[in-house]
Amino acid sequence: MARDLPSMKRDAIEIFNAAVSAVEPSAAVKRFLKAKGNTLTVSGHHYDLREIAHIYVVGAGKASAAMAKAIEDLMMARITDGAVTVKYGYVADLRRIRLTEAGHPVPDENGVRGSERIVEVLRKATGEDIVIGLMSGGGSALTPLPVEGISLADKQTLTRSLLNCGATIHEINSMRKHLSRIKGGGLARLAYPALVINLMLSDVIGDPVEVIASGPCVPDPSTFKDCQEIVEKYGLSDKLPFPVLEYIREGVEGRVPETPKPGDPLFEKVQNTVIGSNIVAVKAAEKKAKQLGYHTRILSTFIEGETREVAKVHSAVAKEIHKTGNPVEPPACVITGGETTVTIRGSGLGGRNQEFALASVSEISGLDHTVVLSGGTDGSDGPTDAAGAIADSTTWEKAKNSGLDPKAYLDNNDSHNFFEGVGDLLITGPTNTNVMDVRIILADPAEKT
Amino acid sequence: MARDLPSMKRDAIEIFNAAVSAVEPSAAVKRFLKAKGNTLTVSGHHYDLREIAHIYVVGAGKASAAMAKAIEDLMMARITDGAVTVKYGYVADLRRIRLTEAGHPVPDENGVRGSERIVEVLRKATGEDIVIGLMSGGGSALTPLPVEGISLADKQTLTRSLLNCGATIHEINSMRKHLSRIKGGGLARLAYPALVINLMLSDVIGDPVEVIASGPCVPDPSTFKDCQEIVEKYGLSDKLPFPVLEYIREGVEGRVPETPKPGDPLFEKVQNTVIGSNIVAVKAAEKKAKQLGYHTRILSTFIEGETREVAKVHSAVAKEIHKTGNPVEPPACVITGGETTVTIRGSGLGGRNQEFALASVSEISGLDHTVVLSGGTDGSDGPTDAAGAIADSTTWEKAKNSGLDPKAYLDNNDSHNFFEGVGDLLITGPTNTNVMDVRIILADPAEKT
Repeated sequence: MARDLPSMKRDAIEIFNAAVSAVEPSAAVKRFLKAKGNTLTVSGHHYDLREIAHIYVVGAGKASAAMAKAIEDLMMARITDGAVTVKYGYVADLRRIRLTEAGHPVPDENGVRGSERIVEVLRKATGEDIVIGLMSGGGSALTPLPVEGISLADKQTLTRSLLNCGATIHEINSMRKHLSRIKGGGLARLAYPALVINLMLSDVIGDPVEVIASGPCVPDPSTFKDCQEIVEKYGLSDKLPFPVLEYIREGVEGRVPETPKPGDPLFEKVQNTVIGSNIVAVKAAEKKAKQLGYHTRILSTFIEGETREVAKVHSAVAKEIHKTGNPVEPPACVITGGETTVTIRGSGLGGRNQEFALASVSEISGLDHTVVLSGGTDGSDGPTDAAGAIADSTTWEKAKNSGLDPKAYLDNNDSHNFFEGVGDLLITGPTNTNVMDVRIILADPAEKT
Repeated sequence: MARDLPSMKRDAIEIFNAAVSAVEPSAAVKRFLKAKGNTLTVSGHHYDLREIAHIYVVGAGKASAAMAKAIEDLMMARITDGAVTVKYGYVADLRRIRLTEAGHPVPDENGVRGSERIVEVLRKATGEDIVIGLMSGGGSALTPLPVEGISLADKQTLTRSLLNCGATIHEINSMRKHLSRIKGGGLARLAYPALVINLMLSDVIGDPVEVIASGPCVPDPSTFKDCQEIVEKYGLSDKLPFPVLEYIREGVEGRVPETPKPGDPLFEKVQNTVIGSNIVAVKAAEKKAKQLGYHTRILSTFIEGETREVAKVHSAVAKEIHKTGNPVEPPACVITGGETTVTIRGSGLGGRNQEFALASVSEISGLDHTVVLSGGTDGSDGPTDAAGAIADSTTWEKAKNSGLDPKAYLDNNDSHNFFEGVGDLLITGPTNTNVMDVRIILADPAEKT
């Protein structure tokens, strides 16, 4: 007996919620960091707290207040000082660790102030201390602390110029790291000679630690010479602020310090650990789906690309499940992660997850007992209060009967209003975490292959 | 020990060739149709040839001459008469069955002549006879036989108008079937009361028998009333030729016959069998990959969409194999089928398969021991003599070192010249078959997950 569609939609929501719970900041911190008696254990490493004079906590990112709260829960009495910067509103009730709210995605002066507080804390750290870093998505924009002589406005001009000239994200990051005191290993250098335990919630595909929050505790292989070549390659020498060009020139000439490089002994005192990521969420989703009786298949957590095209490929997998039971036999649950993009052509309201579900509506119409859910783990998809949406194999017909034309809404990028109309928005509220998106296909055709 | 990259590329080609061999027209016909003594067996149905007076063979499509050749090989002496129409050049050495070469994709007068020959053959068939149908890709354009009073030019105007007005493929097919004597069950009606054994090589995603060659032996649920509504919906009443509008009006009024409908007893005498399709090719590829020692996973044979975006999703799967061993453990072979599209923005030379491989080049660069092959089973990708191309995880670097910029070639839709430059075109020559495309990802990273 095939499941009924309403219960499959409830299953999809339950599977999505399991994914989000697994990367909830407090749960993630507590899974990797344990304080028991005099022993602090982090991902298999043991630290004897009797040998540690002070514990400092610093961090930045949308989830960092919630992560800091977990640290206070675990070891409030041992924390000497701390400072974390979050996006406006992403607060938690902290006692010992100082909280700064600042601008994101566009950095502001509060971000500079928060970064200065982080530097103040790091200045106190000695070789007898531990610095706990708490980095999460948004950490880069929330720690704007340019090197001496460069203003926040200069850095903003730099970022704009790099984006406009078509520089790669890799090139943009090299430039940013060389003009920042925190990014590209800067934080680890400021903390030295203290031990650094850096915990990261990854919002980047593939979890490259040098990219998450711009790698504040990770070596930077790029050089000032690379930066100079980027300036030349894109003809930026008359577009960038003079202090930026001047600083790069000084760097090339060795008159200002390079970013810390791979092999630098300071990194021997750094332990970088990804405590939450898309794959953690996706694996938790898989576990829940198995509990609910589905055969599961994780396709990829590296999914990128134009949302509606990616949705078509997902629907193609749903169709194959019906036809041949590949790549997984029904009752089937296929899970993917990552983050797609939307090229906006219309004037509607939506986000990449709602658009993904909307693009699936016509594709899965006519299949039997099929559900497609796409949701952002941060609980907020585009400029809407929905995390995503749920399409099923009857949505197309239901919508048509209510006078809603899925194609017209898709053409107008108006996924939010479409799913509000059919009553299938996925609403979770803010989750305080962000490990990109999770997509779930459930297929349980009555006629088994 | 991981395999070396050159041998993995040879594996990919061998896997692709196995896919094509499985759907070679003669092999496909002989797998489903067996003549032994007085018994003709077709896909499990047995026919006593002593009870059959005449066997007639009719067909249309690019592979239909090769299919007809297989029938002659099997039972030349029993064939009374036959007629098949192929695209110019897609010939075979036929003795008993008359071959007509005609225009494709734009129908021409030779196509009309070939269709008239098919009708002549069908007119002879009685209730004591068998008609063997041999349909393959292109069969629709190769059988232009408008109903009385409508010219080939009228039908061409109709097709252009429908394409321009944005009608769906479903709507276009309804119109075509109602204005044709062969499509939409017409051939089966002409053959009645003979037994019809219709063998199809499918070049359509999902193998819908009503779409392959426009379903000459399949009921057509659409009606003249549907056609009239399409005319009104798209405001075509002053755009279509008068005889077309007149014929539809007569149909609505019941003065000309409807297409044969589901449930029409004439279909009790029809056996439709898909003898070759994308899934057959993909499954043969899987079998070969297993023989070569790979763990395999078929993702979907329903893959559609913008080629470079679809390629990104495939590369995302390759990345996941490296990171977690999902959706299949290395040494891994992931196979997909279907047919993508290319939105042409540049002025280069290429096809969807070569573009797929080119779009993969940057994505899989940096992975370990990874190969992506994309090939058209007809052996001809776009207006080139290559079937497709092969990218591997070192192609990006190799190309850069030879002064070939993959991104620039991709921007210019110039995949053929790129792969000619790096020496990784997939060349098979014409295969005489077409079941769309097969894509193969091989990944065998040295460091196993």
